[in-house]
Amino acid sequence: MDTKKVAVILSGCGVYDGADVHEVVLTLLALESGQASYQCFAPDIAHHHVINHITGEISHQERNVLFESARIVRGEVKAITECHSRDFDAVIVLGGAGVAINLSDFAFKGPDVDINSPTLEVLNSFKNENKPAGYLSIAPVLLPLIYGEDVELTIGNDADTVAILESMGAVHRLASFDETVVDVKNNLVTSPAYMVATSLLEAKAGIDKLVKEVLSMSISRRSYFLHAVG
Amino acid sequence: MDTKKVAVILSGCGVYDGADVHEVVLTLLALESGQASYQCFAPDIAHHHVINHITGEISHQERNVLFESARIVRGEVKAITECHSRDFDAVIVLGGAGVAINLSDFAFKGPDVDINSPTLEVLNSFKNENKPAGYLSIAPVLLPLIYGEDVELTIGNDADTVAILESMGAVHRLASFDETVVDVKNNLVTSPAYMVATSLLEAKAGIDKLVKEVLSMSISRRSYFLHAVG
Repeated sequence: MDTKKVAVILSGCGVYDGADVHEVVLTLLALESGQASYQCFAPDIAHHHVINHITGEISHQERNVLFESARIVRGEVKAITECHSRDFDAVIVLGGAGVAINLSDFAFKGPDVDINSPTLEVLNSFKNENKPAGYLSIAPVLLPLIYGEDVELTIGNDADTVAILESMGAVHRLASFDETVVDVKNNLVTSPAYMVATSLLEAKAGIDKLVKEVLSMSISRRSYFLHAVG
Repeated sequence: MDTKKVAVILSGCGVYDGADVHEVVLTLLALESGQASYQCFAPDIAHHHVINHITGEISHQERNVLFESARIVRGEVKAITECHSRDFDAVIVLGGAGVAINLSDFAFKGPDVDINSPTLEVLNSFKNENKPAGYLSIAPVLLPLIYGEDVELTIGNDADTVAILESMGAVHRLASFDETVVDVKNNLVTSPAYMVATSLLEAKAGIDKLVKEVLSMSISRRSYFLHAVG
């Protein structure tokens, strides 16, 4: 069996202004446990803002999303412009407020969200090639813009965010920390992770499930093509 | 069985100038898996310097060790001055360059190392109360100053660091990523983690072992006292 290669998309370092550190580490651990290889990517752009993770206040400091993402993964991250879907079997987008302030402006514009252009291009290309995708935690707020109306997803149970996503045409499913929602027509898996989890063990349950499903979709797809040309 | 309470000491956020993010998350996961509770602490001081985790260059920016540590643990960290050994069954000190540039000046002064005063006070008090302690990765460079001569430890297999620690009177044992060194007389466990590990799964093997041993020492110690007063 070939090793599956997964592109992992980060948005900074720290749950309140970047990628959720716990979710990232648990996802990479699940990928290693599933014998998959991975490469992390993040946009080479300025943080929208920097949050003091104890006081919640904005610190007036400039930070770069790519360089901060590197802190989570011991330097092993590349610019999103170097991510080519042809090199990977699947993509996973991690949660954290960075999704809504750095990868996109969802936190400020809600249903009128724009996604950072090179990031949108990458995520669209995985979709256009029909490759499996996993979106964790708050990351599914990006999905209506990529997968269009009727995309099925979960962001847990946060009523305000659910209402915005439904107004954009998404079909929201409530899910607990250990559940995933699979949109079969789009090869798409979502799970709420820390949108509802209250511990590492709870978050790990849903993340392990999402990673397993994304890898298994990727395996099925390869088998299909082997069969088609066989 | 009572829940064991463990104090976890951090030194920033990011392997090259703070706490090693992977080691922190894996340690907290192991504590949760072992049904222990934990509270993280870090000194409320400026980073000695800030390293760009992709280029390795120093960025001329001021950051605070406590606030940066908060990024790893979703804000749940307190100042080290709030850490009282009487409230905990054990202490675990995480690795990352922050140990050698923020918690101490080992990176600059080697055998003439000084440890940040409030941090030294806390670590000494765990030692003086004979409470179990786990030091991961590079953190054992602090041990000669706390436990004195003949302290047994591992920092993996890094010859230069081993030579310095031996010159300070420590007894160094080589260890692989999945091994621990137990100094029985001091209730002390060390394991090299990312000093030798090359993946999350490798790091997890040694970290899980260290956490299990620290928790089990803590249990034995409690039983001893129950027996003594029983």
